Amino acid sequence: MTNNVFWHASQVDRQMRQTRNNHKSFVLWFTGLSGSGKSTLAYAIEHKLFERGSNVIVLDGDNVRHGLCSDLGFSEQDRHENMRRIGEAAKLFVESGTIVLAAFVSPYREDRERVRSRLPHGDFYEVFCDCELSLCESRDPKGLYARARKGEIDNFTGISAPYEEPIKPDMVIDSGVMSVKEEVDLVFTTLKDKGLIAPGN
Amino acid sequence: MTNNVFWHASQVDRQMRQTRNNHKSFVLWFTGLSGSGKSTLAYAIEHKLFERGSNVIVLDGDNVRHGLCSDLGFSEQDRHENMRRIGEAAKLFVESGTIVLAAFVSPYREDRERVRSRLPHGDFYEVFCDCELSLCESRDPKGLYARARKGEIDNFTGISAPYEEPIKPDMVIDSGVMSVKEEVDLVFTTLKDKGLIAPGN
Repeated sequence: MTNNVFWHASQVDRQMRQTRNNHKSFVLWFTGLSGSGKSTLAYAIEHKLFERGSNVIVLDGDNVRHGLCSDLGFSEQDRHENMRRIGEAAKLFVESGTIVLAAFVSPYREDRERVRSRLPHGDFYEVFCDCELSLCESRDPKGLYARARKGEIDNFTGISAPYEEPIKPDMVIDSGVMSVKEEVDLVFTTLKDKGLIAPGN
Repeated sequence: MTNNVFWHASQVDRQMRQTRNNHKSFVLWFTGLSGSGKSTLAYAIEHKLFERGSNVIVLDGDNVRHGLCSDLGFSEQDRHENMRRIGEAAKLFVESGTIVLAAFVSPYREDRERVRSRLPHGDFYEVFCDCELSLCESRDPKGLYARARKGEIDNFTGISAPYEEPIKPDMVIDSGVMSVKEEVDLVFTTLKDKGLIAPGN
């Protein structure tokens, strides 16, 4: 006879993980138009945090749209569900002690606030990559704006679907003007000011 | 004018994470009937791996059913989608350098094999918690079998829904007979034999 069901391992909780990692876990949620530099900034921050010894991951369209959310399209309903699942995945990573850098257009305020509401207070920070549509469109790194203008892509944010700017974002990145290095420096300064990461490089 | 879109951070890849963590990342997928001791074993292994300094997380019904898969029920279709999403979440964790201990009834072979197929070869190990239905039912830690027998729960694995045993599992745990300590020792010995974790405690 086994004692399996009466046996309890002391669970490894988030605090134990954070203590060992020597840093807090939290979500930086990068929102903004396609081409506003969200992923670029997120990967630059990931690299710097990793070099500091942090556990960190980027969630973005590249690793989510073909996997966790591969069954979803870009209708309003599917976008809501897309954001919900990403928020829940981010929550699991935060519980595992990992800093999450989530880079998604995430055009609806309600979706972003729902993700915030699913995390403990102080774990979610909205970073608005603020870049004018005309500049994003002139960059058009993936040729998506051109295709959207031709009508080849439905529900394209900024062209045929709305983008709801954050009302009170935790950080604003003037990504039409700043260099990536300036952006990274600003984010790191803010994270230190908020006590989310330790002082130092 | 910004150089955002021309600037590329060197991405932090899985190999860099594994090297820093000093261990590989992979998935142990615990499958078996409700009450077969999957979660108990997974949490015991998590605890021991954490004490060894590993990055490790348990995914189970408790942290998935109320979050990532909160919109899903227990119909066959929903069970497939449940497994698919958990597999994709596990994949993200493996990419982040984390050992994933996934503890789910996961009654369908096809679903388990689909998760395996979504991960690189050698990253997925099926652990069959092999315990007779009668014993699982006599344990009934959550009272679910009693409710299923009364017809209060539809599609309950082993009672009103099938469980498809693994044909060639990577590990078999005789969880009706072994103590949790014996089970943990067996899993650790196997992980060392496979070169998935380093020798030592």
